[in-house]
Amino acid sequence: MIEILEKIAKEASEKTNIKLYRRSVERILSALQVTSDFWKIVDYADQPVPAASEIIKLLIKEGYVTVENEELYLTEKGLELVKELGIPPYVDYTCQACEGRGIPFYANIDWYRAFVQLTKDRPKAVQEYDQGSVTPETTVSRVLFLDSREDLRDREILVMGAEDDLTGLAVALTGLAKKVLILDIDERAIEFDNKIFKELGINNAEARVFDLRNPFPEEWIGAFDVFITDPPETVKAFKAFIARGISALKGEGSAGYFGLTLRDSSINRWQQFQRALINDYGMVITDIIQDFNAYMNWEYHDQTKAAQISPVKKSPTDIWYRSAWYRIEALPGFKGENVQIKDEVFRELYLDEEGSTT
Amino acid sequence: MIEILEKIAKEASEKTNIKLYRRSVERILSALQVTSDFWKIVDYADQPVPAASEIIKLLIKEGYVTVENEELYLTEKGLELVKELGIPPYVDYTCQACEGRGIPFYANIDWYRAFVQLTKDRPKAVQEYDQGSVTPETTVSRVLFLDSREDLRDREILVMGAEDDLTGLAVALTGLAKKVLILDIDERAIEFDNKIFKELGINNAEARVFDLRNPFPEEWIGAFDVFITDPPETVKAFKAFIARGISALKGEGSAGYFGLTLRDSSINRWQQFQRALINDYGMVITDIIQDFNAYMNWEYHDQTKAAQISPVKKSPTDIWYRSAWYRIEALPGFKGENVQIKDEVFRELYLDEEGSTT
Repeated sequence: MIEILEKIAKEASEKTNIKLYRRSVERILSALQVTSDFWKIVDYADQPVPAASEIIKLLIKEGYVTVENEELYLTEKGLELVKELGIPPYVDYTCQACEGRGIPFYANIDWYRAFVQLTKDRPKAVQEYDQGSVTPETTVSRVLFLDSREDLRDREILVMGAEDDLTGLAVALTGLAKKVLILDIDERAIEFDNKIFKELGINNAEARVFDLRNPFPEEWIGAFDVFITDPPETVKAFKAFIARGISALKGEGSAGYFGLTLRDSSINRWQQFQRALINDYGMVITDIIQDFNAYMNWEYHDQTKAAQISPVKKSPTDIWYRSAWYRIEALPGFKGENVQIKDEVFRELYLDEEGSTT
Repeated sequence: MIEILEKIAKEASEKTNIKLYRRSVERILSALQVTSDFWKIVDYADQPVPAASEIIKLLIKEGYVTVENEELYLTEKGLELVKELGIPPYVDYTCQACEGRGIPFYANIDWYRAFVQLTKDRPKAVQEYDQGSVTPETTVSRVLFLDSREDLRDREILVMGAEDDLTGLAVALTGLAKKVLILDIDERAIEFDNKIFKELGINNAEARVFDLRNPFPEEWIGAFDVFITDPPETVKAFKAFIARGISALKGEGSAGYFGLTLRDSSINRWQQFQRALINDYGMVITDIIQDFNAYMNWEYHDQTKAAQISPVKKSPTDIWYRSAWYRIEALPGFKGENVQIKDEVFRELYLDEEGSTT
């Protein structure tokens, strides 16, 4: 019966152009044992949305799964398959205190309170810029994480995009960094940050409208201890963003942070990312914490490719989009790149087979 | 003044033959701001013991650090240096509930209780086999981690060495794995496990005396869903152990788990390990959780190289030796190796410049 999984993986691969294998199907079947919600299945199974969707459609076609009121259930045949192949259910032991991050967001409750109060009128996420903001607990935990790795106090910190998460703002609000430079293409986020900096008299932080496809000016090269970003998940765009961030690092021991998801990219692509980090850029990976970053449901969900290809019409009712938190460190011989990113590289994002939430 | 750090890093590098850089010295100075205990400094600074020791000796020589009653303190000159260079103090936000693992050991309290009760007469760690057992909380958290990644239930699991941690026993005690094979060179651990299996009537688990330098018999090749190990931290020995584990994996989606420390290996060496995992063996790294594994103070501490090279004569009073928890996954094209490990590779362990606790 194991051939059934191989067959479904193969068919779903051909249909989606995403490399899938038996384990991909197994993970969907693990999730189906504990939830009937499509978005939770994607979350638990750590599969790109198009992959999860196609696998489920094939499971439905083969009679292993059935749809009732936009919920997904294993049929008797499906339950038998799971039992026969010994496919375990998804089990969740996530720490309730720290939400699985290893650092609780309330470790510095003042930072959390200040951040939440100051950002209650934050701009809403928009599809145009591929936004979908992380929870305030995520943002504050990122700052705590930096601090715990000596990457916050007296450091010069560069925040590259994704400022709808307000990570740069949260870093600056601690008052502990030496300098914070926040870059984002979205004027609303930049204005929001600068207004708060002005109101609070924070003068070592600056937010600037900047298109990260463009090269950095000379004065930013080799000028920062830390960069933080949330790169697009195509290989070329990932490499371009990360290489640019690395070019801004001062030297050995400088660090980069970014989120990387398995909702918009496959585990195969992760390997390509890791290969680039180590072989091309001379970095070492010091941390990979799964599900560190929890994203709030964005308002434009119904307009996404994800919503369109979903096997059911039900929208998410809870957090389902998460990404892992990577920390990388520069070692002797590290090198970045600071070249113009061509439009076609960026356009690939919207044609990408694995991505679906942009 | 930054040149002082560069100079100390360079001198310590030459003396120890470990690649060190400014950040290595900075991290020692970060730790020195919050503790006077040498072993806690090693823990907080994530540096190999010989590196931490040499850096501190140089800091003492240059008048930045002083020793009083076997405790280490920054001198006034040292405090000025730290202030001048803006070197932040080490800050600890570790979640108290899960000890920073993201999964609390009490998530399945029955597993924890059973494990602790059954193992109260466990064999003591001995130096001969490079032992130093992890805490029961660590062992049980490993099992919970496997379960949360669908690497426990109905899986065939191979535990390669380090059974003084009793990880194989804890896995078997859940009764959820399909099969557990435990290999260790230490007869005491093997007998201990088999006695419990017999007493409890567990018949899908087996512990065998096996020297992991020897190749696996044909029937173990490609026969397991999961391997768990705690490899030696020299490059050759690491590669040999991990490659052997990978050769035992069934296929794509099969997983390997191991601990990797920064107490007995440098961050530079981590990069070599990561390069091997990705380039040579076709694996992808899915998780790196720092300080997941906490080791109890072994009784033979005074006989270790670590104790001999320490800048002070005080023994550890608390847990200071920790390792990160790696999970790796096999992708299409992955490949292991199952060759005899030559004695000289293994002997290198004891001549290794970065290691000191074996």
